[in-house]
Amino acid sequence: MQHIYISNIADYEGQEVTLHGWVYNIRSIGKIWFMIFRDGTGLIQCVVVRSEVDQAIFELEAKLTQESSVSVTGIVRKDDRSSGGYELGVKSIEVHQYTENYPISPKEHGTAFLMDNRHLWLRSKKQHAIIRVRHQIVKACRDFFDDNGFTLVDAPILTANVCEGTTSLFSVDYFDTTAYLTQSGQLYSEATIGAHGKVYCFGPTFRAEKSKTRRHLTEFWMVEPEMAYCDLDENMEWAEKFISYVVQWCLDHCQTELDILERDTTLLEKVTPPFPRITYDKAAEILKENGVDFEYGSDFGSADETILSAQYDRPVMVHRWPVETKAFYMKLDPKNPDLALGVDVLAPEGYGEIIGGGQREDDHDTLVERILRHDLPMKPFQWYLDLRKYGTIPHSGFGMGLERAVTWITGIKHIRETIPFPRTIYRLEP
Amino acid sequence: MQHIYISNIADYEGQEVTLHGWVYNIRSIGKIWFMIFRDGTGLIQCVVVRSEVDQAIFELEAKLTQESSVSVTGIVRKDDRSSGGYELGVKSIEVHQYTENYPISPKEHGTAFLMDNRHLWLRSKKQHAIIRVRHQIVKACRDFFDDNGFTLVDAPILTANVCEGTTSLFSVDYFDTTAYLTQSGQLYSEATIGAHGKVYCFGPTFRAEKSKTRRHLTEFWMVEPEMAYCDLDENMEWAEKFISYVVQWCLDHCQTELDILERDTTLLEKVTPPFPRITYDKAAEILKENGVDFEYGSDFGSADETILSAQYDRPVMVHRWPVETKAFYMKLDPKNPDLALGVDVLAPEGYGEIIGGGQREDDHDTLVERILRHDLPMKPFQWYLDLRKYGTIPHSGFGMGLERAVTWITGIKHIRETIPFPRTIYRLEP
Repeated sequence: MQHIYISNIADYEGQEVTLHGWVYNIRSIGKIWFMIFRDGTGLIQCVVVRSEVDQAIFELEAKLTQESSVSVTGIVRKDDRSSGGYELGVKSIEVHQYTENYPISPKEHGTAFLMDNRHLWLRSKKQHAIIRVRHQIVKACRDFFDDNGFTLVDAPILTANVCEGTTSLFSVDYFDTTAYLTQSGQLYSEATIGAHGKVYCFGPTFRAEKSKTRRHLTEFWMVEPEMAYCDLDENMEWAEKFISYVVQWCLDHCQTELDILERDTTLLEKVTPPFPRITYDKAAEILKENGVDFEYGSDFGSADETILSAQYDRPVMVHRWPVETKAFYMKLDPKNPDLALGVDVLAPEGYGEIIGGGQREDDHDTLVERILRHDLPMKPFQWYLDLRKYGTIPHSGFGMGLERAVTWITGIKHIRETIPFPRTIYRLEP
Repeated sequence: MQHIYISNIADYEGQEVTLHGWVYNIRSIGKIWFMIFRDGTGLIQCVVVRSEVDQAIFELEAKLTQESSVSVTGIVRKDDRSSGGYELGVKSIEVHQYTENYPISPKEHGTAFLMDNRHLWLRSKKQHAIIRVRHQIVKACRDFFDDNGFTLVDAPILTANVCEGTTSLFSVDYFDTTAYLTQSGQLYSEATIGAHGKVYCFGPTFRAEKSKTRRHLTEFWMVEPEMAYCDLDENMEWAEKFISYVVQWCLDHCQTELDILERDTTLLEKVTPPFPRITYDKAAEILKENGVDFEYGSDFGSADETILSAQYDRPVMVHRWPVETKAFYMKLDPKNPDLALGVDVLAPEGYGEIIGGGQREDDHDTLVERILRHDLPMKPFQWYLDLRKYGTIPHSGFGMGLERAVTWITGIKHIRETIPFPRTIYRLEP
């Protein structure tokens, strides 16, 4: 079966083709009616003229409804007034199903209703565009690491380990024991750099957080590179090179979608290296200068991140954090052991943290001490400690939350629209 | 920091470089000693000559052990006797850590021991090669679908749905309710083709099976394409085109790794379309001709699959299965309602089923009846049934288990070596 799609309709100018898809919209001007038709790759206007088709076909105008499934046969014609540049002069239409009472109409619906109908809402123009951008972002992430000599080494989802703290873990009945859903593949990537030098993992991660903010999901995807023989400075170079590549890729491949989403792409065009680098201390100063009653030693809140990102026209990298703000595995700054060699990258325009990373502690005894100080159980970390016994090395890495990156690049308000089937504290369906 | 890796050492012939990695092996012939050195991208022989280095460097021969972490500086020299074609004439060595008592030596170890030390075992030559092939297979899968106009639409991991039967589900404590780990993204992809026409998802899936065979993992990755307006025949065309592309990609990009794994690549070279297509009935006949006491209506066992695949020099596609062998969502053959329009693809050389798929039931009332007949709860399928109410279409898809494909293409015996951190009924660590 040779399929022809709207996305490459230009190749068929002047030819008769059959397209398979769904009715998007219909309007009539008497002897002619127009059907906007979609097939998943785009939209095209189909023109039905009374004098050119069988009467039964012409009369479909009264019967066809939004989301009816149809195959349309006609001649591809150049038409500069159409958004795609082509229209279809209809010869015949085959109806697969007349759709009745499609729940999502062009009128406004509440978010809860749309989320309950997520399986259908995904067909809408904006949701279609968001998922296409997500697709291209994933591709850009993978291509970037593949082309730069990284090996994909998938981290496990089911683990006995605790990476980011015990309070936000989902537990799984695992035969006669309990497993946890991974919060990050980092600890495993720290192992696999010993085999492959530069690695990345890219998979779903989970946080049982009761947060109901527009930035949180309980299930989200993370891409996490990790590099052997890499310090904090080089880590930041990788991060800015990576983000710039992804944004540039989207500008090159998602123009149609970003137009639909009314994204101001001039702001994205500025995302090129070098990104500004400021210390946490400097960031705290900036907040105070902006009148924030910021408590030194605490993490930044959403509002703080917005103020910080407003100082710059591209992502800003905040490095060297008070040790108590960061996880046990962060290496301490040799020049000031009150600081951890971590880095957060804040997106511009107030989109918040998109990357967290840093240099990892590579000394065995220091790491043992820090696990104890964080009150974590030692046993599940035995294999992780092995990495510091058998050829330990300076190493660094970072993680980018896919959905946060999609939110920023598409310029939308709420993270729940960046993933096909969002999971939040109150939502497990569809 | 500019890094130089063994993988592109040829670019530096005659130049002084510093490589960062680990000691693989050392041997001495008195005034000269040789260190086989690895950096994650390959191996290189480093030559240390007494008259050319400081005494302290020369004396490292007695101190350096397997897996010690070192940076080596020297001159890149062409050397046709070396496997990579180059060697390093050492000028100096910086030691980061002397490794003591590395648990994995060149001697034979039992599998349980190696699996307990999976975080280190991954550094071994064969394991390194397997993970590299896995990396290239993943890349080939994604490139194939991206280049053929599919949209990546990730399916959720946490679900309220049951896809392949209730007995092998992992349950998760999800706030005040219970969620299940996905067994397949198919049902969700059936929704997203309504938005994107051709989609794929590629993520981890889970089966709480108590199987202890060498073909089973509790956590494994699946790539699952789904196509709107696609029947069983076209589905089989996609499957053979896809598998052939992936195998060809590996032949082109994994020659070094397949050599290390001693894979007979002449058998892989035969994997080109068209693949033989036989009905289940024909397959049952073949089994009987081969003396198997096969009960018509049952699924094929491992031994049956081996006999069937031995008839052909490339994967064989078995289609049209007795309806009771297949899931509720399979469309029945309009020519014979005792048969479901499913297809299994069996790998050659007895590697078993690598793909399962078929055409899906697209009629609302038939699907309701089948859900009832399979004794499944109706409520969680409401959204799935919606897809048959609002513009239903003929559609098909399939799923390929990544680890089974890696097992076959690398030609290894046990699936547990095809995933970085395998999860089985008795193994949740490391």
